[in-house]
Amino acid sequence: MASRFPSVDCEPIGIVRSPRTAKRDDEWGGVESRIELDAETFGPEALRGLEEFSHAEIVFYLHRVDEDQIEWGSRRPRNNAAWPEVGIFAQRGKGRPNRLGISRCRVRRVDGTTVHVTGLDAIDGTPVLDIKPYMEEFGPHGELEQPRWAVELMERYYDSS
Amino acid sequence: MASRFPSVDCEPIGIVRSPRTAKRDDEWGGVESRIELDAETFGPEALRGLEEFSHAEIVFYLHRVDEDQIEWGSRRPRNNAAWPEVGIFAQRGKGRPNRLGISRCRVRRVDGTTVHVTGLDAIDGTPVLDIKPYMEEFGPHGELEQPRWAVELMERYYDSS
Repeated sequence: MASRFPSVDCEPIGIVRSPRTAKRDDEWGGVESRIELDAETFGPEALRGLEEFSHAEIVFYLHRVDEDQIEWGSRRPRNNAAWPEVGIFAQRGKGRPNRLGISRCRVRRVDGTTVHVTGLDAIDGTPVLDIKPYMEEFGPHGELEQPRWAVELMERYYDSS
Repeated sequence: MASRFPSVDCEPIGIVRSPRTAKRDDEWGGVESRIELDAETFGPEALRGLEEFSHAEIVFYLHRVDEDQIEWGSRRPRNNAAWPEVGIFAQRGKGRPNRLGISRCRVRRVDGTTVHVTGLDAIDGTPVLDIKPYMEEFGPHGELEQPRWAVELMERYYDSS
């Protein structure tokens, strides 16, 4: 880069409240949790109309990842010897620069400044940086391809526990 | 929230280089751009294996949005009187808390610390905070629903210009 952009300051907009309190690799499918907006900053109007979407995209901060767990180069996903060494930007491991997590979940209902969701892969206490409604048109366009290791890794990720 | 989580500091990992230099609502479909990693921090190994994925998910910072353009409550998307007033977390408008953008794009090829992509809806100079490979299993599960205004808004978003 010609010049480095200064660092970006993000204020959590809310927090995840989940029955999952410990890190876990798999079985996020049936987890029912909620996102509580920071009620000092936001009112119910910030969520108005979200219930008309079946799914939302959540950006969250992986707050339980320590600095020394962050990979800047490449490693085997989940340190599994059966899988190839790939770059941190070619995998979705938690120990990544900026510690950002993104995933889709089902919107069950909105109650005041709380969003009730299913299938969000974030543990209790996770700071939330954004909520976006999921629109079909924003999905990937054209045919999807991914390597075999990624299919194997995801095999039980969204199973019910 | 019981207690507020402190603000989160994100360091851009790279920058978007695009022929699009001005904000634009629609016609992102055919845009060919590239993401240049910060070569002081990352080497080519951080991208190793990314080419085996057809699509990537990019997190970027909407750096051209001014503080006074940020909506904290609700408004009509694109200020279009034909569409309902919805919360900022029920729309994907740029003027949002934390100014985070997320979208999917096609990975054309990786060349050193540069990723060549198609269909990324970010203008030239946009700081990039993360690159994640897109995996089918991370897509929304179950049937999608979205309100009619969102379908109308997206009608030409990914058209070719």
